[in-house]
Amino acid sequence: MAEESVDVPLKRPREEEENGVSASAVGMETEGNPDYISSVIPGWFSEISPMWPGEAHSLKVEKILFQGKSDYQNVMVFQSSTYGKVLILDGVIQLTERDECAYQEMITHLPLCSIPNPKKVLVIGGGDGGVLREVARHSSVEHIDICEIDKMVVDVSKQFFPDVAVGYDDPRVTLHIGDGVAFLKAVPEGTYDAVIVDSSDPIGPAQELFEKPFFESVAKALRPGGVLCTQAESIWLHMHIIEDIVANCRQIFKGSVNYAWTTVPTYPSGVIGFMLCSTEGPPVDFKHPVNPIDVEESQTKSKRPLKFYNSEIHSAAFCLPSFARKVIESK
Amino acid sequence: MAEESVDVPLKRPREEEENGVSASAVGMETEGNPDYISSVIPGWFSEISPMWPGEAHSLKVEKILFQGKSDYQNVMVFQSSTYGKVLILDGVIQLTERDECAYQEMITHLPLCSIPNPKKVLVIGGGDGGVLREVARHSSVEHIDICEIDKMVVDVSKQFFPDVAVGYDDPRVTLHIGDGVAFLKAVPEGTYDAVIVDSSDPIGPAQELFEKPFFESVAKALRPGGVLCTQAESIWLHMHIIEDIVANCRQIFKGSVNYAWTTVPTYPSGVIGFMLCSTEGPPVDFKHPVNPIDVEESQTKSKRPLKFYNSEIHSAAFCLPSFARKVIESK
Repeated sequence: MAEESVDVPLKRPREEEENGVSASAVGMETEGNPDYISSVIPGWFSEISPMWPGEAHSLKVEKILFQGKSDYQNVMVFQSSTYGKVLILDGVIQLTERDECAYQEMITHLPLCSIPNPKKVLVIGGGDGGVLREVARHSSVEHIDICEIDKMVVDVSKQFFPDVAVGYDDPRVTLHIGDGVAFLKAVPEGTYDAVIVDSSDPIGPAQELFEKPFFESVAKALRPGGVLCTQAESIWLHMHIIEDIVANCRQIFKGSVNYAWTTVPTYPSGVIGFMLCSTEGPPVDFKHPVNPIDVEESQTKSKRPLKFYNSEIHSAAFCLPSFARKVIESK
Repeated sequence: MAEESVDVPLKRPREEEENGVSASAVGMETEGNPDYISSVIPGWFSEISPMWPGEAHSLKVEKILFQGKSDYQNVMVFQSSTYGKVLILDGVIQLTERDECAYQEMITHLPLCSIPNPKKVLVIGGGDGGVLREVARHSSVEHIDICEIDKMVVDVSKQFFPDVAVGYDDPRVTLHIGDGVAFLKAVPEGTYDAVIVDSSDPIGPAQELFEKPFFESVAKALRPGGVLCTQAESIWLHMHIIEDIVANCRQIFKGSVNYAWTTVPTYPSGVIGFMLCSTEGPPVDFKHPVNPIDVEESQTKSKRPLKFYNSEIHSAAFCLPSFARKVIESK
């Protein structure tokens, strides 16, 4: 993997020292733990947020492996008792070793299996490297750019989640540390076949990634008939946010605009959705993958097999419960 | 609705007094609350169980509306801050007003929309009445038996969940208070078009409902080409239990044996599965519903519209992640 120096303006000033990145293995004492550890069941991590008021998912903590504060967010890694290692950003679960396959495989293969021969792919966010790992399964891909704002997420993932960060080992990957919004503005028109936005929730560093100017930049950076897949929250919790995203996308993406979803047990409400959009050009029928990866996979024994994704679950992901279909189709 | 007296032997002796059934609105003091309240965040209910070790889902409690101990289990109802009223049995969430639609609609319409003209339906468990409400949408149905072991569940549901227990108001319904296993043994062969088993987890009163003799009784009670739908746990948490259920069902149901699943945010891991089986006879292709309810629904304005189920999500429910498909297909 080629690692470029910061080549786009950063959204916020960053301090240069990397002190916070050293691993610290602390005990299970409640004192000294961050707020989101101490306020809950002793010895458990609880995910409490205004994004999902009145509920919390908790995981039993065996050992805290890392705690740091980057220029953008609080970063924590712990060993859980039944979900493997867990990555937390600003108190919110980003991935667990047990269920990360569902999210990473779906956010990647839903877009890439929907177009023939993807060659250039951009990942915004996704600093853990899991999306890179999945993109790298596609042999047609020649170049993968990733723009992650927070270097601490990259470093921590490489240290504690080698089976996820393995994505960085692919020689087609170029890492850009910087702001995805600014990066996209500097991209020549029509550069990418696919853009995948693997962001955290729209409160915090990722907020701009849910706004209209950002979607406009994505559309410009894509070739005609190119595709966007972006994390798009939960139909059970955030229909109002989803409504806005869908309305924005319909204005900007003149190919097609679709909502898909999947199960991820450690995400709030147990599901997460994706917006799948294409620009004007060769039509993209997201519901019927033209570039199946299942077959190719079965022929290459070298890589870890897909755990979650298959062509059937690809199509099924676009079937929505009536309450969600009604809102999304009305936009 | 006709309510019959107990007409089958009960599994365990029941005391006659109904003292526990009176509603008690208690405050939020931790003392005096059952164990599963006192061990967690004050003012929150946390669902902790050996069935899903190392994790817990918590809901903020506004007010406890009912606590009682039946002959079979602890029964609790509370007003949550964001999920409406919640029914708890033995410390496990059975339903919340906010997401019960997903479970009740899927467990009912997956089987009933898969066969033409269902006329006689048996519900085992399902004391809250939600499955009855959904069965009653099918105009072809002439008779609905329900066998619930715990009268307290029925009484509490009628008192606190009128929009769920409304199912009991249908004149086609006959309630049998008693043990489902014994009830089924007394049923003449070939009686039902469909049997729906809406049980709690296989620890506690529902254990026998996951065992082979029970499935044999179900198969006998069904007409040729009749269908069973039974609650079948989570692919994320209980693949070992699911493996056993699938293996049992393949031995007993000589029509077809299928696994489907859906999202229910307040169930552990956010999903719940169903076994869908048919007896030898006219073939049943569960994946392609022959008796769509969407159309009929749109013509009758009298009932609350379906919130979750539609024909697309019916078929999608049978598409499994690769890790689950591999195990289930190997049985």
